[in-house]
Amino acid sequence: MSGYHVAVVGATGAVGTRMLKMVEQSPLPIASVKALASKRSAGKKLPYADTELTVEELTDDSFEGIDIALFSAGGSVSKRFAPSAVKAGAIVVDNTSAFRMDPEIPLVVPEVNPEALRSHHGIIANPNCSTIQMVVALEPIRKAFGLKRIMVSTYQAVGGAGQRALNELAAESKAYLDGDVTKVTPEILPVSGDKKHYQMAFNLLPQIDVFEDDAYTHEEWKMIHETKKIMKGDMDDPELKVTATCVRVPVPVSHGEEVYFEVEDQNATADDIRAALTGAPGVIVQDDPAHQIYPQPAIAEGTRDVYVGRIREDAENPGFFHMWNVSDNLLKGAAWNSMQIAETMDAMGLIQPK
Amino acid sequence: MSGYHVAVVGATGAVGTRMLKMVEQSPLPIASVKALASKRSAGKKLPYADTELTVEELTDDSFEGIDIALFSAGGSVSKRFAPSAVKAGAIVVDNTSAFRMDPEIPLVVPEVNPEALRSHHGIIANPNCSTIQMVVALEPIRKAFGLKRIMVSTYQAVGGAGQRALNELAAESKAYLDGDVTKVTPEILPVSGDKKHYQMAFNLLPQIDVFEDDAYTHEEWKMIHETKKIMKGDMDDPELKVTATCVRVPVPVSHGEEVYFEVEDQNATADDIRAALTGAPGVIVQDDPAHQIYPQPAIAEGTRDVYVGRIREDAENPGFFHMWNVSDNLLKGAAWNSMQIAETMDAMGLIQPK
Repeated sequence: MSGYHVAVVGATGAVGTRMLKMVEQSPLPIASVKALASKRSAGKKLPYADTELTVEELTDDSFEGIDIALFSAGGSVSKRFAPSAVKAGAIVVDNTSAFRMDPEIPLVVPEVNPEALRSHHGIIANPNCSTIQMVVALEPIRKAFGLKRIMVSTYQAVGGAGQRALNELAAESKAYLDGDVTKVTPEILPVSGDKKHYQMAFNLLPQIDVFEDDAYTHEEWKMIHETKKIMKGDMDDPELKVTATCVRVPVPVSHGEEVYFEVEDQNATADDIRAALTGAPGVIVQDDPAHQIYPQPAIAEGTRDVYVGRIREDAENPGFFHMWNVSDNLLKGAAWNSMQIAETMDAMGLIQPK
Repeated sequence: MSGYHVAVVGATGAVGTRMLKMVEQSPLPIASVKALASKRSAGKKLPYADTELTVEELTDDSFEGIDIALFSAGGSVSKRFAPSAVKAGAIVVDNTSAFRMDPEIPLVVPEVNPEALRSHHGIIANPNCSTIQMVVALEPIRKAFGLKRIMVSTYQAVGGAGQRALNELAAESKAYLDGDVTKVTPEILPVSGDKKHYQMAFNLLPQIDVFEDDAYTHEEWKMIHETKKIMKGDMDDPELKVTATCVRVPVPVSHGEEVYFEVEDQNATADDIRAALTGAPGVIVQDDPAHQIYPQPAIAEGTRDVYVGRIREDAENPGFFHMWNVSDNLLKGAAWNSMQIAETMDAMGLIQPK
């Protein structure tokens, strides 16, 4: 069968299982799919279309004959094995932070900067989930009115920390409702690799990823640098100012973001912003306060778009606006954006099926 | 027994029960306590110290001999009955929005503007919960460095919508974890009096209180106007710019707030801000990223202080800072601030026990 030979690395995870689903639903011709994971998961069965895949152990030899390799098994796995995949002739779409800051590697959201794909050397980085949904919603505004300043407060879902974090939230929530949350000892959240772990159920944790020395978290710096690299081509661009606060909330899937931003065109109105977003690629405007219509994680989960609402002017600061966006962090924020990169490369003629 | 005769109006509610607790724990001499509520609740027993109170129906005659009346039974009840309490000689501390915008009525947070109590005419308004915790944390900063601009994103607990909202969150959360959240039909949240109701469990709802015509919610305007009135004495003061986005999160008690603000003194550093907050009245600094110390609702619940952390500079915008604050919205945001107003009036000689 002619078509693309695809490998998913980290296939058993919260993102990996969804990557398989995105491959399954892709309009690209798919010749074969390989599910790769650590030795521990080898032999496990995963559903795919009307059949199932047997998980294989990831090795340097896994990529023989592979055209597209989607990676989502952690930064160290990507650093170790992405070069093997490139050497075997595959293009790698990497959903970890391993290569995002590398100036030689394109960091791509197809609705925003597809042209960056042309300069790839085999690896394309998929941005951080919280960055992706924000830039999809801001790019139509930047194009129409210019963008000077972004100040974002995130309300991030637990699924971003992986399947074990989701299990921990569910177990803790049950224990809490049974009257004793201490029956479950937190071992994963807020950050599995950090020293302390805290209750997430019915709580808020203002820490996503580890802290840097400057009291920002790594997640907050990812949003700042990645947004600049995607929107302006330079992760240190001083012309677009970005600042962020990232907070984990007890929601399983779909991040919310309050984005406060300043446009260059001080004559822009909230209606103008709404008009610029209506029909923009990847964006669905849900903004009708009179009928209580606004984006919600429970509604966004399982879909591929970025939902935008609560668009309004700051009455006292001309050129400043608010908007609230919600998107499925495991799909548009990860699995879908990765597969969408592959589909975009196919459409641009940057890859061809064998 | 000599001392204050106290009445709590709305004594059976989420705030009212906590007001009784604050009266019980007060160092003021308390001669008697009366629990008032609607006819529906009359006869109900409520715990108080090592005894119990029998709830009485609220009428115009309820305030005979009362010195201090704490109201938390909704704006219409306050409008209807606060004048009767004042006529009977009581001072009213009102925890509804009924009188907050009245320029003749002091709107008080004791740590911030106690002097405003001197101009009272019998009624003192207790601010909105989300406003209180923010101004307690900002006032020491305003005093030390001046304050030009406040941009707040709230993460507000369900308890702010009352006991029935808390019950709804618990029931929905159970149904969700049992695999079918639709077994519970939302009837209260986001706003009991509004037309549509949505799932709150494991979800985010960017609506608190009803929408105004300008696409802001009433809660957002409360934060804007009340903050100006408390900090500057004028709810339309254009010198202090305030903007807000209010979001309900699936947390029972204690609001979180990401406060982004600009100070006048552009030489101020994050260390300076932290120093100004350390030891400030009503504030506890919990800000040690290296040891993952930051404010959390699950830790703040049941306490009276405002916890502040995640203090850091915006590297690209001199004079702009972030902080994350958390406080028990039913205590400092309501019951405690109300009783604290009475205690402050006693300390200032504005009221005396009989």
